[in-house]
Amino acid sequence: MYEFSKAFESPRESPIRALFKHLGQPGMISLAGGYPDPALYDVAGLQEAADRAGRDSRACLDYGATDGTPRMKAAVVRLMAERGCETSPPHVIVTTGSQQAFDLVARVFLNPGDRVLVEQPTYPANIQTLRACQARIGSVRTDKDGLDVDALEETLARARADGALPKLIYTIPTFSNPSGATMTLERRLRLLELAVRHRCLIVEDDPYGGLRFSGEPVPSLLSLTSRVAGSSAWVVHLASLSKIVAPGLRVAWAVAPAEIIHRCQVAKQAADLGSSPWTQGIAAEYLASGRLAAHLRRICAVYADKCRALAAGLRSSLGDAIRFDEPAGGMFIWARLSGGLSADDLLAQAIPRNVMFVPGAGFQVEHPDASTLRLSFATPSLEDLAEASRRLGEALHATQSNRPPSSRP
Amino acid sequence: MYEFSKAFESPRESPIRALFKHLGQPGMISLAGGYPDPALYDVAGLQEAADRAGRDSRACLDYGATDGTPRMKAAVVRLMAERGCETSPPHVIVTTGSQQAFDLVARVFLNPGDRVLVEQPTYPANIQTLRACQARIGSVRTDKDGLDVDALEETLARARADGALPKLIYTIPTFSNPSGATMTLERRLRLLELAVRHRCLIVEDDPYGGLRFSGEPVPSLLSLTSRVAGSSAWVVHLASLSKIVAPGLRVAWAVAPAEIIHRCQVAKQAADLGSSPWTQGIAAEYLASGRLAAHLRRICAVYADKCRALAAGLRSSLGDAIRFDEPAGGMFIWARLSGGLSADDLLAQAIPRNVMFVPGAGFQVEHPDASTLRLSFATPSLEDLAEASRRLGEALHATQSNRPPSSRP
Repeated sequence: MYEFSKAFESPRESPIRALFKHLGQPGMISLAGGYPDPALYDVAGLQEAADRAGRDSRACLDYGATDGTPRMKAAVVRLMAERGCETSPPHVIVTTGSQQAFDLVARVFLNPGDRVLVEQPTYPANIQTLRACQARIGSVRTDKDGLDVDALEETLARARADGALPKLIYTIPTFSNPSGATMTLERRLRLLELAVRHRCLIVEDDPYGGLRFSGEPVPSLLSLTSRVAGSSAWVVHLASLSKIVAPGLRVAWAVAPAEIIHRCQVAKQAADLGSSPWTQGIAAEYLASGRLAAHLRRICAVYADKCRALAAGLRSSLGDAIRFDEPAGGMFIWARLSGGLSADDLLAQAIPRNVMFVPGAGFQVEHPDASTLRLSFATPSLEDLAEASRRLGEALHATQSNRPPSSRP
Repeated sequence: MYEFSKAFESPRESPIRALFKHLGQPGMISLAGGYPDPALYDVAGLQEAADRAGRDSRACLDYGATDGTPRMKAAVVRLMAERGCETSPPHVIVTTGSQQAFDLVARVFLNPGDRVLVEQPTYPANIQTLRACQARIGSVRTDKDGLDVDALEETLARARADGALPKLIYTIPTFSNPSGATMTLERRLRLLELAVRHRCLIVEDDPYGGLRFSGEPVPSLLSLTSRVAGSSAWVVHLASLSKIVAPGLRVAWAVAPAEIIHRCQVAKQAADLGSSPWTQGIAAEYLASGRLAAHLRRICAVYADKCRALAAGLRSSLGDAIRFDEPAGGMFIWARLSGGLSADDLLAQAIPRNVMFVPGAGFQVEHPDASTLRLSFATPSLEDLAEASRRLGEALHATQSNRPPSSRP
């Protein structure tokens, strides 16, 4: 009946939302979400922060600045400095989650038909954003060391020859959602060089960087711009409190060249005038309280245990039928089923057994690999992770015995 | 250096933001903002609501549903019923201010080059939204009874003959920003008939409807859809707590046909995943507390006094040099300078005298009338409104004596 815009003619649901309906199933253990464990929220610290923020009722209740409250922007500058990135308020915009930061950057840069590159696999909500901009989306493969920069270099050289360079490359270099992989230092430096050479914007999405539980930190692309001449013009860095403090605050930010931030601020005026100064006030007070460091140590220790529990459970219950690299942080294990099994078939057997995960195809914009799946260890308890693995083992056996004999390997 | 998208190649600042730099001038009395009076916030009621919402920490801290928390959507349904509009949750999406609701509707409907109609004058931040969608924006004149439906009918008939019908008509029918005007019942019914006849979406922006301080309420376009066959398919109603409770909550909503709400929800997933469930929780608790009705009575009484004070001050200090209709609600007096005076010239004399307002040209997309201006009575005290009028009188005399004699009438 309505003539919708081309961008929203045929809306697609995200692969995760498609599973929402099963969440309420009694006894369901979900490995599908990308949510922090609510049991780990620093409720007392956030309540204190809310009480302190609430004392300045006007700061909570008035309109705030479109690009973020001065107090929250200052808190971002301090936090980024602790992360090895010197920046300043004109280089920062506070947003409603990193999702909005990505949306603003995409809207500010992309015309319909513009080309972009994403990692294979990548975060699907940002694919939706790129589709809403009617971008042409290509992908570059990744491995356990993150984005394959050799493959990217070839892709860019070919694109240059065809006059079809991408305007933007989207990467989650640290504990990627969904792959869990972290890009090596050497690859990061080469990525920055490629950005400069091809005048291509890199959007570095870093919601998980604070969630390292093993190995040595790798500097962010933003912090490495000081080592690659000209690269600081080509990096937009997105970070968020959603995974490290609480998603309900909806407080995230972008750090970028001032000219880009200015356009994003103009875009945000048209998009929502500004994010809530109340939750920004709570977030700023929380960061000022100095509790974040201890909180991160606490949650990383728990996520480390959970990751190990799920990894051990999968190995013990599914054995050779599943392969994965254990991540050094974040919330996700990305796995591949062997023997020609499909994740959709496994999921169909898993759901009646009260366990679910997300098939990997929805994270892949080209040539989806039906054998892949994403399992999150963040939310369930250690006991539930063990039980979930056991149920997945049962589902696996059912999947294997349901297959027509001819297709068995 | 960057190749921005066409939508953001040459960003325009809003006419109000251009004045922000003068706000800090010591002693400045601003009639420029469109903000509620912070002295009127129901701080105690909101603090109670925040305390109650905070008891359910997970509801505050987890991700909320993209289209709004079930509790906030239920509160919207109840509030809309009190306003004479029967609706249900699938017809509601909660947004970060009405600005976001308008942005989502615009993105869902408009392709670059699509035509839209707005009132002359109209709210400039939504013009920015339409420009970001690269819409072709036409305007229809208004008078003290709101949108001139005769003019609209002619415009639509001509557009139909040219095969250039607008996809969307944007109206603020009640206590318009900036005009203060309210559309009559008869015009509203005719507007709905025109929407049905030309299959054109009406976006009814109603942030001020609760702020009536004199005269009889006129039903919203949404509530009148029951009286015009087929019209319910063509009305999107936007409402907000920003003007009646507090803008810092950033809680607003759209009511529309379920198919439109569904697209908006998909668009919002890509735009920010969801507005903060924490501030939605506070808003829902506040609405559940039942304090809104008494709060509205209190603030409407104050705004009535303020409106009268500004109107009387303008008449006494500027006399025949200014003409305006006193509004029956809202926050704004829309005025015209006589004798060929321009609002920009008056503003140039006003700012050094520590009073400011917004010249009207920025509210007009076609043929801007340099003699018009918007004055908000909402924020200053009664004393400041009287003093502001006195200063405007001085500025007027300075403007008149600064003009070259030949141009004096």
